Amino acid sequence: MTDRNYTLLCDFYELTMGNGYFVNGMQDQICYFDVFFRRVPDNGGYAVAAGLQQIVEYILDLHFEEDDIEFLRGKGIFSEDFLSYLRGFRFTGDIWAVPEGTPIFPQEPILTVRAKAPEAQLIETFILLSINHQSLIATKSSRIVRAAKGRPVSEFGSRRAQGADGAILGARAAYIAGAAGTACALSDKIYGVPAGGTMAHSWVQMFDSEYEAFDTYCKIYPKSATLLVDTYNVLKEGVPNAIKAFDNNFGRDRRDVSLGIRIDSGDIAYLSRRARQMLDEAGYQHCKIIASNSLDELTIRDLLNQGACIDAFGVGERLITSESEPVFGGVYKLAATEDARGNITPKIKISENTSKITNPHFKTVYRLFDRKTGKALADQICLYNEEIDDEKPLEIFDPNYTWKRKTLSDFRAVKLMKQIFRDGKLVYELPPLDRIRSYCAEQMETLWDEVTRFENPHDYYVDLSEKLWNVKKELLDNKGKQRKAEQ
Amino acid sequence: MTDRNYTLLCDFYELTMGNGYFVNGMQDQICYFDVFFRRVPDNGGYAVAAGLQQIVEYILDLHFEEDDIEFLRGKGIFSEDFLSYLRGFRFTGDIWAVPEGTPIFPQEPILTVRAKAPEAQLIETFILLSINHQSLIATKSSRIVRAAKGRPVSEFGSRRAQGADGAILGARAAYIAGAAGTACALSDKIYGVPAGGTMAHSWVQMFDSEYEAFDTYCKIYPKSATLLVDTYNVLKEGVPNAIKAFDNNFGRDRRDVSLGIRIDSGDIAYLSRRARQMLDEAGYQHCKIIASNSLDELTIRDLLNQGACIDAFGVGERLITSESEPVFGGVYKLAATEDARGNITPKIKISENTSKITNPHFKTVYRLFDRKTGKALADQICLYNEEIDDEKPLEIFDPNYTWKRKTLSDFRAVKLMKQIFRDGKLVYELPPLDRIRSYCAEQMETLWDEVTRFENPHDYYVDLSEKLWNVKKELLDNKGKQRKAEQ
Repeated sequence: MTDRNYTLLCDFYELTMGNGYFVNGMQDQICYFDVFFRRVPDNGGYAVAAGLQQIVEYILDLHFEEDDIEFLRGKGIFSEDFLSYLRGFRFTGDIWAVPEGTPIFPQEPILTVRAKAPEAQLIETFILLSINHQSLIATKSSRIVRAAKGRPVSEFGSRRAQGADGAILGARAAYIAGAAGTACALSDKIYGVPAGGTMAHSWVQMFDSEYEAFDTYCKIYPKSATLLVDTYNVLKEGVPNAIKAFDNNFGRDRRDVSLGIRIDSGDIAYLSRRARQMLDEAGYQHCKIIASNSLDELTIRDLLNQGACIDAFGVGERLITSESEPVFGGVYKLAATEDARGNITPKIKISENTSKITNPHFKTVYRLFDRKTGKALADQICLYNEEIDDEKPLEIFDPNYTWKRKTLSDFRAVKLMKQIFRDGKLVYELPPLDRIRSYCAEQMETLWDEVTRFENPHDYYVDLSEKLWNVKKELLDNKGKQRKAEQ
Repeated sequence: MTDRNYTLLCDFYELTMGNGYFVNGMQDQICYFDVFFRRVPDNGGYAVAAGLQQIVEYILDLHFEEDDIEFLRGKGIFSEDFLSYLRGFRFTGDIWAVPEGTPIFPQEPILTVRAKAPEAQLIETFILLSINHQSLIATKSSRIVRAAKGRPVSEFGSRRAQGADGAILGARAAYIAGAAGTACALSDKIYGVPAGGTMAHSWVQMFDSEYEAFDTYCKIYPKSATLLVDTYNVLKEGVPNAIKAFDNNFGRDRRDVSLGIRIDSGDIAYLSRRARQMLDEAGYQHCKIIASNSLDELTIRDLLNQGACIDAFGVGERLITSESEPVFGGVYKLAATEDARGNITPKIKISENTSKITNPHFKTVYRLFDRKTGKALADQICLYNEEIDDEKPLEIFDPNYTWKRKTLSDFRAVKLMKQIFRDGKLVYELPPLDRIRSYCAEQMETLWDEVTRFENPHDYYVDLSEKLWNVKKELLDNKGKQRKAEQ
């Protein structure tokens, strides 16, 4: 998907700042930016990271065409030296990120950029856009997939997606988080998300009768037929016509044919139970019932609690837009600068709202897993050069309530972020999509049920190391003193 | 934006149905599909149509590449004859649509396709995706722009958009509905949506002091400087530093320089009033105050009601995702088929839910304007060949409550839909974006305030002609009789 040049897909201020750094002789100033988010959509307990592959493709393709430069020149505010500099512009910095499919939590860095100021600034918008979009859809899909308790969930939402990428990459993100497939043919062709689908109501309406529509379909697709049974009346017409078409084309004993009916309207709990009974009585115990119609994790949970007989779900608009909360609030904040001798100066953003105060410095994140259960116990944000020795007990503490302390032992410490770019070179092997998906499923198994439940999940611990906490405290104290002195 | 082949951006069932029509000898069956929607997001009284230009580009580019055909062959379910047919596949039908920027209302067709079954089916997904996405954002933006009561609104949401098109085309849709510009540089380059922006918090943090950051910016951009004043403390530091930088670089008498401050956090009503006072006292009455921070139409209305001193708004995530309701529910329904002799057979989709029963037949829509006030009085959906003679009084009636009747006189009847494609050829001149935007503004003026208010807007009349109503009634009666006979 690098067929389109997205270099100018940035907020205009990235360019005015870039020009500003350049004109002011700061174009080689190294700085560090972190991507993190502050809360999980839908008040969930975890999010699922996604969107890294598209960031890699974007970074590799980053370049200004002559017509981009001409466009910028036309604005009349950029220096000619800066425009010349853009002609040779490439990304030459470092990027670390958590792999796609990793469960992630508020406040921890999920991607860190170390680069010259104009480079680090330019890539902000696309990095956020890609992570925010795909993590949003992966997180929502993860909830929906869990609600379905092992039944396949297909993504059906292209027509309600917010633009073409919303559809194509939304399907990709959904697949990472466990969706079984998509309706979007292009997402299959490009990313290998398995696409499927059989008929719309219009197919049924194009024939003189529903039975004729079903019978014709079974003849054309003799290996697999899922018939949409709600164009007229599910129980009086749809299911009887489906059974008649199955009888006429396959018979109840042909277990090699994959049969299904889909219900797309009405009271699905009731209709699916009655349809199941009718299919069973006709000898079609192997015919699957697929439900689709404004579903999300809560309606799926309720349907299953009400004894609905559903074997698979098609989920559309509420997944592909994360309808209940359509924004993932990832931010991109300056964490440090570095001078020519490699000295790092941590930077902090103060806010009246304490939860908005950033974590300063170049950092890394460890996830601590219980060696006995394999479960994730806590994440610890550390300075970039701290090593956690998981042979020794470790005391962790809550950064907001430092008296809340806990000593961990018999744990395994794993660095969450991988280096993706070094000096502008890709040093990370992008995993194939199926591997991302199975990695996500494995990692989800490391979360306690308390963290993944839909309502009032337990806050997973994301703590700061003692060293990082001291850096932060010192910066806050200094800011306080500075302010006092100024008053 | 035709650099990417979107032919496979369709639900997979469009292809299984297409193959089905083909194998069954129905590939030349002409059919009519309508796009319409059932309710306005945010319980609003009107929506704004957008997304047609991208549909035109998509239709013109529609073709299967060899690798698309290879991909489909790999599915093992498509007939070789169908795959060969796809090789020469082009759109050869007709499309009518309301121009972009037109206020539109539930139930009325906003786009009609007349084409051979596999063609009409294939284009469903992209048509809906494009209209649903851009109409959603245009509709939301129209609300936000109205709340700002003439103050410019800029779209700032790229980083929270659902994918790249969400950002680029979202900015386009916002501009159509009256936004003054965008932060998205690429949307400016491609579509001419004016992009702007000056600095982020990171710019301020990159300098030793906020004043130095401001002063440097003013030196680099001596014609126009908008300074972000909330990195540390708006009133104690930000505004005084801005005034100092303005004094040092321009002085209060330089009215040729465009000065501004931007407040992106805190209690904007209070902060903007105090900042206004400080700027005025320093002689900077001409310095604009720009507010941005999780704004939407309701917060903007409240801020202005609370006497906030704001000259312009930057609106991000809540606009670019239509956060309060992120789905526009346009649907694509079969309305008729046509035989080889040109006889049209109307089709209806019955539903237990009466509001979901479709309007059958090939149709057109008239908007009736009061000749005295210029205001829109009602829309009337008619059979395709009905002409409204606006020299005579016209009795309209509510299709759900047929006893509610009203006679209109002294009105002007305007056909809402234009022909876009005829026999696969583009016959419509796509207007430039600025013309779409000014057309939208003009058309918004034709709506009564009762229709455009945020809460409990008046339901605009969308009625059926007597002839269309009779066709619908007959189909419903027949269905009823048919059902009875079957029982």
